[in-house]
This record gives sequence, C-alpha cells and structure tokens, in this order.
Amino acid sequence: MLTGDLVRLRAFEPSDAELIWRWNNDPEVGRWMFGGYPESAAQIARRFEELPRNSYAGTFLGIEPLDAPRLIGSVRLRDAAPETGAAELDLRIGDKDYWGRGYATDTMRVICRYGFEDMRLYRIALTVVADNVPARRVYEKVGFVEEGRRRECFRRGGKWHDMIIMGLLEGELR
Amino acid sequence: MLTGDLVRLRAFEPSDAELIWRWNNDPEVGRWMFGGYPESAAQIARRFEELPRNSYAGTFLGIEPLDAPRLIGSVRLRDAAPETGAAELDLRIGDKDYWGRGYATDTMRVICRYGFEDMRLYRIALTVVADNVPARRVYEKVGFVEEGRRRECFRRGGKWHDMIIMGLLEGELR
Amino acid sequence: MLTGDLVRLRAFEPSDAELIWRWNNDPEVGRWMFGGYPESAAQIARRFEELPRNSYAGTFLGIEPLDAPRLIGSVRLRDAAPETGAAELDLRIGDKDYWGRGYATDTMRVICRYGFEDMRLYRIALTVVADNVPARRVYEKVGFVEEGRRRECFRRGGKWHDMIIMGLLEGELR
Amino acid sequence: MLTGDLVRLRAFEPSDAELIWRWNNDPEVGRWMFGGYPESAAQIARRFEELPRNSYAGTFLGIEPLDAPRLIGSVRLRDAAPETGAAELDLRIGDKDYWGRGYATDTMRVICRYGFEDMRLYRIALTVVADNVPARRVYEKVGFVEEGRRRECFRRGGKWHDMIIMGLLEGELR
Amino acid sequence: MLTGDLVRLRAFEPSDAELIWRWNNDPEVGRWMFGGYPESAAQIARRFEELPRNSYAGTFLGIEPLDAPRLIGSVRLRDAAPETGAAELDLRIGDKDYWGRGYATDTMRVICRYGFEDMRLYRIALTVVADNVPARRVYEKVGFVEEGRRRECFRRGGKWHDMIIMGLLEGELR
Amino acid sequence: MLTGDLVRLRAFEPSDAELIWRWNNDPEVGRWMFGGYPESAAQIARRFEELPRNSYAGTFLGIEPLDAPRLIGSVRLRDAAPETGAAELDLRIGDKDYWGRGYATDTMRVICRYGFEDMRLYRIALTVVADNVPARRVYEKVGFVEEGRRRECFRRGGKWHDMIIMGLLEGELR
Repeated sequence: MLTGDLVRLRAFEPSDAELIWRWNNDPEVGRWMFGGYPESAAQIARRFEELPRNSYAGTFLGIEPLDAPRLIGSVRLRDAAPETGAAELDLRIGDKDYWGRGYATDTMRVICRYGFEDMRLYRIALTVVADNVPARRVYEKVGFVEEGRRRECFRRGGKWHDMIIMGLLEGELR
Repeated sequence: MLTGDLVRLRAFEPSDAELIWRWNNDPEVGRWMFGGYPESAAQIARRFEELPRNSYAGTFLGIEPLDAPRLIGSVRLRDAAPETGAAELDLRIGDKDYWGRGYATDTMRVICRYGFEDMRLYRIALTVVADNVPARRVYEKVGFVEEGRRRECFRRGGKWHDMIIMGLLEGELR
Repeated sequence: MLTGDLVRLRAFEPSDAELIWRWNNDPEVGRWMFGGYPESAAQIARRFEELPRNSYAGTFLGIEPLDAPRLIGSVRLRDAAPETGAAELDLRIGDKDYWGRGYATDTMRVICRYGFEDMRLYRIALTVVADNVPARRVYEKVGFVEEGRRRECFRRGGKWHDMIIMGLLEGELR
Repeated sequence: MLTGDLVRLRAFEPSDAELIWRWNNDPEVGRWMFGGYPESAAQIARRFEELPRNSYAGTFLGIEPLDAPRLIGSVRLRDAAPETGAAELDLRIGDKDYWGRGYATDTMRVICRYGFEDMRLYRIALTVVADNVPARRVYEKVGFVEEGRRRECFRRGGKWHDMIIMGLLEGELR
Repeated sequence: MLTGDLVRLRAFEPSDAELIWRWNNDPEVGRWMFGGYPESAAQIARRFEELPRNSYAGTFLGIEPLDAPRLIGSVRLRDAAPETGAAELDLRIGDKDYWGRGYATDTMRVICRYGFEDMRLYRIALTVVADNVPARRVYEKVGFVEEGRRRECFRRGGKWHDMIIMGLLEGELR
Repeated sequence: MLTGDLVRLRAFEPSDAELIWRWNNDPEVGRWMFGGYPESAAQIARRFEELPRNSYAGTFLGIEPLDAPRLIGSVRLRDAAPETGAAELDLRIGDKDYWGRGYATDTMRVICRYGFEDMRLYRIALTVVADNVPARRVYEKVGFVEEGRRRECFRRGGKWHDMIIMGLLEGELR
C-alpha cells in the first residue's frame, strides 16, 4: 500500500532515533529547516518510544528504499481537518546519499496518494523556504502549485527568508 | 473450553506483537480490512503490554492450531450489550499458510459457542466487505445470515465498496 | 444555516434538561427507542451542563419550530469517520403536538444538508425499529434507502423486534 | 494602551458570552468564517469563565467603541513564535451596526501596534476568504500585503472557496 | 505587626479583585510596570480565590490606610533564598489619591522591617524603570542603594528603557 | 551551527551525568558558584534522563573541544522573555585542563551568536561573583558590559561576596 517505485513508507521504531539524531545535527540536511533546539539522542529515543499512534490527526512515517532496509528520511501528514479534507505535509530526506535520485519525488507520490485514497483528503499543502530550489522542483514535479510567498517568516543565522506555500488538490497528483 | 477441532483460543501475550505487526503490514492479509494507520512494532508491543483484561465488554483472543504452539490469527467479541445480548465479532487469520484449510470456520464455531454459552449472548453480528467472498462463505457455513448491505462505507485505494451485514442468533450456529 | 422551512436546529442549553426528562419518561415518545435506565431531572441537568462541545466526532442539537422558541426534539450526528465520511444519525421529536406535521422531515433535511455541506460527510446511516412505520416513511421521503434488517436486536417488554438499517449517500438527499 | 481613535480593546468577561453566542448564530456575521459546530450559550459562558490568561502564546480581546461600553467584536493574536516574532491574527466585528464605519480598521491598528511595540512581534499574518472583499480592503488599508491564495480550503454550503494569505511586517503598519 | 504610621498590610480577599482589575487597566498606574497581557475581572477574581498561602517563598499583601478600610495598593516579597537571605520586592500604589503622600514610603518600611525581623532576610532587592524618578526617590529615602543599571530590558510603546537595580542590606533600613 | 573555532555545543546525554557529578564535587570548579546541595551520581543521572527538551524557555548544552569528543563544560540560556528578547546565561568549564586556553571565550561567542541569530534574542545578561576575575575578563572580551554590583548576595564559607551584573545587547558581541 505504502509502496512506490523506489520507496516504502513505514511507522517509526525507537531504534530509528540515532539516525534522526545524526540528521538533526547535520547542517546540510537542516539547512532550510527550522531544526528546533539541540536535542540529545536519548531524548529523541524517548520521544520515539512514546510516539502517538498514527491517525487521521497525524501520520509520521519513515522512508526506506525498496532495495535496502535502511531509513533514509521521514514524511508526515498532519493537522488534517475532516470538514475540508485539508492537511499539511512535511518531508525530509536525511540520508544525503539519496539526494537528487528521485527518492523524494517517489515518497511524495506515495504519501499523497495515501492521503487522497485512504484518508479521503481533498487538499495537501506544504511550506518550503524560497531558497530551497531543489525541494520546490520536487514538489512541482508531482503537481504541487505555488500558492503564495510568506515574507520573512524563516530565520537562519540572523537573516530572514521568505517561505513558499504550495498546494495540491485531489486529482492534481502526477 | 475455548478449544475446537483445529484451534485453541487464548489471551494475547506481549510477545505476540511482532507477528501482529507483520500481518498489519501484509497487503494480502489486510486487503479487505481497514488497516488503520501505520503502527510500529514497538507501539504494538506497548499496546499489547497494556491490553485491558478480557471481559463482557470486549474479549480479544489469539488463535493457535491445536498441533502447533504458534499464533495464526485473532478474533474479538466486542460491544456486547447485556440488555439485548447482541455483540459484534471480528476475525483475522493472519498467517496465510492457514488460509482455506478450515481454521477460520473452526475459530468461528469456538468463539460463537463461547459467546452463546458462556457469555449468554443472544445475537452475534459482523460486517464484511462485499467483495471478500471467501470470508462470507465461512460465515454462512457456520450459520450467519446476510441481513443487509451498507452501501459505500469501505474505501480502499480511493474506491468505494459496500459492506455486508451478517447476523447469527442463538440456536442458529452450525 | 441550520434552518429549514419549519425548524431551526441549535445547541442545547442546561435549561432544556427538564423537557428532556419529561420526554424520557413519556412511554409514547420512547416507544421505539431504548430509553436507557431511569435518570433524575437533576442528573440530566448535570449532563447537559457538561455536554461536550459539538464537533466532527459528535453534534447534538435541539429542534425548535421557526415560529415558536420552544424545544420540540433532538437530533444527533455521531461517530463520523473522516476516512470514509460516514456518520450515524439519531432523531427524536419529543413534543407529541409536533408529530405528523412535517417537522421530522424538515429536521432531517436540515441536518443531512449540514452533514454533507459543512462537515463534508459522504454517507449518513440510521437504524430504526422495523415496526416504527411512521419514522421509516419520513426517512424514505428525504432519500434514505433501506439497506438491511438486523434481526431481533431491539427488545421491548420481553419481546424481540428487528431493526431496519437505512443509508443516504451524498447527492441522494431530497 | 490598547486604545485607538474609535475603539478600546479589553479582556473578555464571562458576561460577554451571550453576545458571542448571538454572533455565532448570525449567518451574516459568520458568512466567511468557519463557525465551528453549534455551541450553547451555557457552553460559551463556561469557556469564557475558563479562558486562559492572555499571554505571548495567545491574546484574545474584546472590542468596545470608545463612546459606548458595549462589546462589538473580538480580535486575537495567536501562535506567536519568539524565534521569528511571527503571529497570526483573527478579527470579527460581530455587531453589524458597526460594519463599514472604520471600527475594524481602527481595531487592526491598535492590535498590530500592540503586537509590534509591546510583544516585540516582527510579522503578523492573517487568512481571509477570497470572496470577503470588505475584509480584504480593511487589511490592505492598514498595510497588509497579499502574499498568496490557498486554493479551495474553505467550504461553505458544499462549495469550495479560496483563502487569501496576508502579511504585515514591522514598520509596514499604516 | 504589619502596621506602620499610615498603613496596615493584610492578606488579599477575593473581593479585592475588582480594584486590582481597575488598576491594571489604568495607564498611569501601569506606566512603568510591565502590565502583562489584558486580564478580565473574572480571571483576577479566580486567581485571587486560588492565591497560594503566604510563605517564605512568597508573601503578597494588600495595603490599607490606617484610617480607612480600603485597598490602596499591593506589596510583595518573593524569591527569598534561605541560604543568602536575599529576596525581591515589588510595590504598587494603585489608588492615585494616595500618591505622593508618604504611603509608599511607610509601606516600604513596614514590609522591609517585616522581612528583616520576621523572615530573617539579609538583603532585599528591587528593580525599577530608570525613568520612574518618584519611585526611585521613595526607595532611596528608606535606605535602598543603587547597585546597577540593566540596559534596555524594559520596553514600552516600542521603545527601550534601562532598569535600575537597588539593594537594601539588613541594618540599612531608615 | 553551534560550532566555534575551538568548541562544539551539543545536547546532554544521560551518559554525561558522571562527569557532571565529578565537577559538582570539585571545590576548585565550584569555587565561585553556588553548588546546591549534595546530589548523588544516580540522582544526577536520573535528572539527565528527564532533562526537558531544549526550547526558547531554556537551552542547556554541553561543551566539546572540536578536536576531541569529550565533555569539558556546560552553558545555559534561560528565562528568555519574548516581549523583550532578554535572557540569562550560565557558563561552567568543568574540566580544569581546558581553563585559560580560550575555550570559555569561544563558547561564549557560539552561544551568544546562537541566541541573537537563531532565537532572536535582544539582550543576554549574566551574574558573576566579583572575585572571579578570570571569568569577568572572558565576558568582557566578548563584549559584555558591567552594569552593576549586587552587594553581598553570594556567600561562601560564611563570608559575603558581591556579584557583578553584566549585559550584552544585540550587535555588541565581539
């Protein structure tokens, strides 16, 4: 079900915590994400042991290549509203060996299809730092439409950046 | 007491969690069931450690072949109303090696007999996706009567399916 | 919004408790409903003071004639599942002066339209005792389709009755 | 401090609940707002008795004309993030006698000035249904810039509407 | 014990809430204090009903003129550390009719004497906005020594102000 | 991100507890700090397992030399107020081998830059015992200004010491 051409999405295990910790501490991975405050590996492990069950309200999944049982990233559908069927999406490919090779694109297709078909979503939105051009290209490739530009609401190293808002309606997924 | 010709029903142990996790992730097993959202093995283990004690309100049992101490599925009686003696039943044979060999039928007989004799139920009902023909045959074989067809209330891969409602009254079990 | 040709639906106030108590104790009103166990007016009042806020999970509303600010009944949408958009409906016209005059029909139209349009429901179902012919006619009039007959799952005065299952899909409301 | 040319902003009192209830039930007032599910006056009163204290995380204020001690609307700053100084704003003039007379504009100036000067915000954003032209004009008049259009994420009467995202940076308030 | 030449200090009653609310909303009274976010009279009343008992950790008292049973202000000793005997003091005369007539000075003497004699404090400190010259004079009159100037840590109307730190050691009270 | 010329700052792990315990018990390390009451290594370990996640309200980090993966000290930003952007800072180099070699200075630069750029702080303050001259020199070197002297509010071996208050505004970091 949660399988694409390149990836399989699956629930997180506590043993995934160490990789998450490593990605959180990799400045390249976190370049265009608000990394939050420093968190220890032990704190992440505890958080992953107590992760709420996936549900309509929030589904947080690990990404694995089909040909290798290793975690390479994470994707989340959150804040789904049943009255409008609108949800928000977050994606991160943490393993840099898998950048630029179609894994993000395939993950997007799998999770969006799951959202529309299994969760009966109507609309999926995401926000991306304007300067993160590679990510924006991935989102456009699968059908996301640029819907706006929130001025100066991301801050990195004391500098302000705009964020792009993108949306995908049911039937627009490519 | 909870023993039939082929199977024995027993309470779940936390160590059963891994098999449950595997079945939850097997698309063939979950083809006609709403699988819920992805859940990690660790989350299932925690849930099984905290399983409420079996009672009139809910009895959730593992299925074991009489000749092998291994878990092959699960069965549940739930939502029993003492004023009418009506309850709902769910069955799943997760181990595909035991499909089509009479284990589901035997389990149904054991659990329904337990419901009528030990719990003093009057009526047992279940719901099954209309396209799940093998399951419907098993239920009919032990006496369940088709009582209705709920239109388009199951959804898989973006497509709607009807669900069949079946009921078994005390004395109808074969 | 929640207004039809004859009725207006509104949230319950604690001051409604007394009428509810009176209807609960009227055998004619409760003839085809499971009335629950005897509850004092004070207990109902407390329950109504602590009524959970209406939401996707459950919306419980009082019925008022448009031309008179008095409570004549109640209607509820409950157990909505966002993944299928299916919910259950309960209706009761407690004030017998308003029986047989179109108030139930109008209420059904208002609440179902609200469910489809505002809550983005896909399917509304209800269950009615087979012998309650007037109610069944009302439901059919607004488009509900008989989908099944649960045998002997209602009990009154030691006698069993069947219940009819009805369903209404988006677009079928008349 | 929280006073403009026409209005004064103040904390809510439980006695404000009845007006809030009336506005919630006025279709004209709620035309372009998701009104939530029906809520009784008693529930609103209880909610207002238990309103969390205003703080950086959320400040919810009533609007009063300077020349009359009556509540005419509400305004809220919420979800402020200290790392970026970005917050979200909601406004509602519930009393229709005060529509189109500058009260919304003045309220916007007072609350935004409060946000920038007293809370040290950097950015205030809001979302408005695209068809709500009068509101959009008010926001533009005080300096808000249209930053995007979220497609089909508002639903009213079964029809989809776009929402406009607007933002105001420190120094842009007019 | 807690009586001076002009004032008497006493515990707060819930009925004091309304006066506190009025002072909180008087811009003159709050000119040089961080007023916090707007709070309703009902919220203050609830807070005063649930006020923790006065103790070494915190003692919060109302100020009454000896010749009139009315509340004119409040004074607090807080954050006392038993290892050093150091505590912090806050004072507010809310009733403007009592400004500039010696009531603040008398209150300071009563509460500091209480701190040194009854609580065995060693040092009492306070912080005051640099521009609040009248308050600084009162504190100096009873013996407080200016110990420092925290630059730009008070903000009012978008402008920064310094704060003066003052300290009083046991034996320095005049 | 949290890396300087000599050090890297990182979240604490439970395994750091033993070193912390050793430093707490080293009189030279704690000479100018209030050490709190004796705490067992096990108690510290438990505390470190339950450390709250770092956030705007409090960020507590370990210091590691860039060229050696070992803990040499700790630094904390606490009590940040979003309305003024003011926070307090604590620093301790626990490993005496790293005293007087620039590690404290580098740590100060990293954490202050993080505070101003990533947390959008406006002002960072600290308090240091007046007799701790080496520490005061470090703070001055990175730009901290002496803002005051709290008389006799530190006590060691029955003797009183003054404490110096220092502050650093955004833009003053060197």
